[in-house]
Amino acid sequence: MKAMARPIINHRGPEFHEFYKHLIERIRYAFQTRSDVFALTSSGTGGLECAISNAISPGDKVIVPINGVFSQRLKEKVEIIGGAPIEVPVGWGKAATAEQVASAAEGQELKAIAVVYNETSTGTTTRALKEIGKIAREHDALFIVDAISILGGDELPVDDWGIDLCVTGSQKCLACPPGLALISVSKRAWNVIEGARSRAYYFDLSKMREYQKRLETPFTPAIPLFFALDEALTMVQEEGIENSIKRHRRCAKAFYDAIGKLGLELLADERWRSNTVIAVKNPPGIEDAKLRELMRERYGVVIAGGMGKLKGTMFRIGSMGIVSKQEVSATINALEGALKELGYKS
Amino acid sequence: MKAMARPIINHRGPEFHEFYKHLIERIRYAFQTRSDVFALTSSGTGGLECAISNAISPGDKVIVPINGVFSQRLKEKVEIIGGAPIEVPVGWGKAATAEQVASAAEGQELKAIAVVYNETSTGTTTRALKEIGKIAREHDALFIVDAISILGGDELPVDDWGIDLCVTGSQKCLACPPGLALISVSKRAWNVIEGARSRAYYFDLSKMREYQKRLETPFTPAIPLFFALDEALTMVQEEGIENSIKRHRRCAKAFYDAIGKLGLELLADERWRSNTVIAVKNPPGIEDAKLRELMRERYGVVIAGGMGKLKGTMFRIGSMGIVSKQEVSATINALEGALKELGYKS
Repeated sequence: MKAMARPIINHRGPEFHEFYKHLIERIRYAFQTRSDVFALTSSGTGGLECAISNAISPGDKVIVPINGVFSQRLKEKVEIIGGAPIEVPVGWGKAATAEQVASAAEGQELKAIAVVYNETSTGTTTRALKEIGKIAREHDALFIVDAISILGGDELPVDDWGIDLCVTGSQKCLACPPGLALISVSKRAWNVIEGARSRAYYFDLSKMREYQKRLETPFTPAIPLFFALDEALTMVQEEGIENSIKRHRRCAKAFYDAIGKLGLELLADERWRSNTVIAVKNPPGIEDAKLRELMRERYGVVIAGGMGKLKGTMFRIGSMGIVSKQEVSATINALEGALKELGYKS
Repeated sequence: MKAMARPIINHRGPEFHEFYKHLIERIRYAFQTRSDVFALTSSGTGGLECAISNAISPGDKVIVPINGVFSQRLKEKVEIIGGAPIEVPVGWGKAATAEQVASAAEGQELKAIAVVYNETSTGTTTRALKEIGKIAREHDALFIVDAISILGGDELPVDDWGIDLCVTGSQKCLACPPGLALISVSKRAWNVIEGARSRAYYFDLSKMREYQKRLETPFTPAIPLFFALDEALTMVQEEGIENSIKRHRRCAKAFYDAIGKLGLELLADERWRSNTVIAVKNPPGIEDAKLRELMRERYGVVIAGGMGKLKGTMFRIGSMGIVSKQEVSATINALEGALKELGYKS
C-alpha cells in the first residue's frame, strides 16, 4: 500500500523504462522462466483471455479438463473466439489425471491443452501438471496454464514443466492488490501466435512484445499497481520462491489438520487438495451465509462461499499471500467460535 | 494516493456493495447521464475496445473521422472485429465538421458513428459533437464517443448530446491514477448490444449489467483504483462539473495566450484547439528530445512529445485534472527557460 502512494510517473519516460526493466526480471523470477513476461492491467480473467485469444484461432481444438467454475470459464473463452474445446469431464472436487488427458488427446489434432492448475471454486490442484505438459509436447500442442490462485504458493517451474502460456493474478499468492494479470509466453507460443488469426487489440501480445523492446507497454498501465507489484515481487525474492511455497504448504497443512480435528469434511480428496484454497463442506444444519457473516462481523475474518452449483453447500478459506501462523490461528479460532455459536458440536 | 492505501475489501462482500453503489452514482454525475455506467479495470483503450466489440458485429458499417493517432486506433478496433469503417479523412490538426460527417453518412446503412472527441495526439477537439450526434440519430445509428482525454475538462452532457456509448479514462481530467476506464451505455446501445454477435469476454457489457444488479463486477476489480476513483469523483462533485470545465478552459486559455506571446505556433486552428491538451510545433532549430529533457531534468516539468507521424516535430502539454494557475505558471516558466537555453529568441 505504501508503494502505491508514490507519485505517478510518465509511462513513456526514462524513469518508467528503468523501473519496468527490473519489474520484468522480478516477474521472471516468480515464474521461474527465461521466456517473455508481461504485466497486464486487468483481472486474471483478462490475462487468460489474452492467452487464449492470441494463440487460438477459430476451429482450433483445445483440450480443457473441467472440474469447477474456473475451468468452465476457460472453456467458454475458447468457445467465444470460435475455438473447439474438447472437454475432459473430471468432476467437481477432483482433478485431471495424465491418463484422462492422454486418452482425450488420442488421435486428435490439437492446438493446445489448457488446464486450470488450481481450481479456486473447489480447492483442488491438478497434481499431474508436469505429465500433462509432456502430453502437450507429444502432440505438438501448446500447454496453457491458468495459475491464477497458485503461482507463488505451490510448485510451478514454468520452463521446466514446458508451460507455453502461464497466467497468474497479482492479488493471490503474490500478495499484491488486485488489478493486474501476469503472463509468460514461450518461444513455441510465439510461433503459434505469429500464425494465428487473432482479434485481440487491448490484449495483443505481439504489440506488447514490440513495445517491451523499448521497455514500455502499448497502452497506459496502472502505474500504482505496477509499483505495488514491484514491491510484492521484491518481497517474494527476499523470502525466496521455494520458501514461499514451503510456507504456503505448511499453512495449508495446519488448516487441513485443524479442520479434520473439528470434524469437518473437505470437498477435495487428499490427493488433489490445494495448498492455497481450503474448500470445506458445510456441516449439516449450519446455515451457509450465517457462518460467513458471523466470522466476518464478530471475528473480522473474511472467508468465501461456494461458487456455481456448490453455492450454499460449502465455504472456502484463502490461505495465500502473506498467510502465516497468525492468520491460520485467527481463522481457525473464528471458525470454531462461529460454528459453536450456530450449535455445531465437534 | 491516500485513498489507495485503504485495506483491500472483498469484492463480493457487503462493504463493496455499499461502496460500489455510491461509486456508480458519482460516475453518472461526471458523465451527466442516467444511463448505465461501468468502471473497467483496463486502460482507456480497453474501454473503447469494450464499446466497439459489444456493439459492432462483423460487416457493420461505422463512420470514423480520422484526425490523429487515436482516431486511427478507433478505426483499427472496428476493423479487428470485422467491422467496416468508413473513414472521414479530416487531416491532423483539424477536427470533423457536421457537414463532413453528414456527407459521409449519406445513403449508407450505418451501425454507428464513432468519434474521438479530443484527439490527444494533435490537441484538437471535435466541436461539432452535438450536431454529429443528431446525424447519428437521423441514420438510426449508434453514437460512440472516445472522451478519454476530455471528460471533466470540457462540455460533455452525455444524455443531452445523445451519446450512446461514451468512454473515458481515470487518469485524465478526472485526476485519478491510471488503470481504469469508464463507460456509459444508453438504452439504444443495449438494444444493439443484445442483437450483436459479440466475442467480448473480459469486456462483456451484458455480463457487467447482470453483475451490477447485485452491485458487483463480473471479475475481480482493481480495488485500490476503485477507491482512488471514488475520491477523485468526490472531488469533482465538490468542485462541481461545470466549475471543473471552466477551470480547464481558463488554464487552457492562459497556456494559449502565453504560447502566443512566446511566438510559438500551435498545431490546431483556434476553432478546434483543445482545453485539455496544448499541442505546439517545435520552433525551427530546437532539438525535440532536448527540450523535453531540459524541462524534465532542470525544471521538474514533464511534457509529452509528438505521436505517430508528428513525432519529433512538436510537443504536447497536458492541461487537465488538478491543473491550476500554479501548474500553468510553472510549465510556462520551464518552457521559456528551456527554450532560451536552447538558443530560441521570442
